[in-house]
Amino acid sequence: MVENGRLAQQLQFILEVDKLKSVLRRSLIANGERLENSAEHSWHLALCALVLHEHANKPVNLARVLKMVLVHDIVEIDAGDTFLFDEVGNTSKAEREQEAANRIFGFLPDDQQVELHVLWEEFEARETADAKFAAALDRLMPALHNYHNQGFSWHEHNITSQQIMPKVAHMRDGSETLWQTVQGIVEDSIAQGFLTR
Amino acid sequence: MVENGRLAQQLQFILEVDKLKSVLRRSLIANGERLENSAEHSWHLALCALVLHEHANKPVNLARVLKMVLVHDIVEIDAGDTFLFDEVGNTSKAEREQEAANRIFGFLPDDQQVELHVLWEEFEARETADAKFAAALDRLMPALHNYHNQGFSWHEHNITSQQIMPKVAHMRDGSETLWQTVQGIVEDSIAQGFLTR
Repeated sequence: MVENGRLAQQLQFILEVDKLKSVLRRSLIANGERLENSAEHSWHLALCALVLHEHANKPVNLARVLKMVLVHDIVEIDAGDTFLFDEVGNTSKAEREQEAANRIFGFLPDDQQVELHVLWEEFEARETADAKFAAALDRLMPALHNYHNQGFSWHEHNITSQQIMPKVAHMRDGSETLWQTVQGIVEDSIAQGFLTR
Repeated sequence: MVENGRLAQQLQFILEVDKLKSVLRRSLIANGERLENSAEHSWHLALCALVLHEHANKPVNLARVLKMVLVHDIVEIDAGDTFLFDEVGNTSKAEREQEAANRIFGFLPDDQQVELHVLWEEFEARETADAKFAAALDRLMPALHNYHNQGFSWHEHNITSQQIMPKVAHMRDGSETLWQTVQGIVEDSIAQGFLTR
């Protein structure tokens, strides 16, 4: 279809990542109609970054955060979406995802393969201001969705606030404001019976 | 849920745009399983911008292009996805979308409302280098998807190459390379019987 070697590699990558549209998450879309997939979640997260970056604890590079959230879940094409509260699945997550990153980013020309792989690792490591903020957004969204859906995914998987709090604690490193927001959502969800303490 | 006025407005906007996940396009996702929605399409387009921006005719500001493609279809929440080849729908498209932009971006604090509304108008006007490139990507994707699905949406709606060519001609303003790619896809699709000349 395309003879230009570099462009052909890029288009192969673009077609390959289409598969992220078939990776289902545990949360519903806001109207409650169906489970959310990881591609549309990634779009939503990028839009959050665009609208909420003023709430980061330290100034972030928005372009880098956008790139990071656009690629942050691509490894799920091979490794699947590991539920935050799946203790068994989370023990093998890092290894499975590293293999996936090698394969999927491997479609790209070398320079881009390195750029995106490194960016994804930065997101996972949560050490830079950009990654801490991106990770905070990634915790905000399920809380928002669950609150909006009367705790659907929490009920479905018997999740309590005691399990949620340690998982969202790192939000504080990225955004004190959004961390407080999630605390408020959790408290309000308990009060409204969407979530067990 | 949130008392901070500005943050509350931003979160309302974020919840409102979740509806884009329920707006269906005419093309299938690459595995052919179901129609694509406009939210996951927007993610895919952003990823294309990230990977393909070196092919823009003129240097583009990647951060602006990313923002532009992330919001480019939000108006479809109210106005629906107007099929490129729907001549009747396209006569009222501009007005319907302008009203939608007023309502949906209207959830945001004033400064962000103006920023995103102006960015969306820039995309629609296709006058700047960033907008021309973003618009070229928006034409590339359906061609790629249709080619990959043996012309599903072209067959479904009796679309010929004669109808496609004028609609993709503006790609040349954003990316000569990607315009040639789509020409190649169209020719190859005709040769393989995916598309009628």
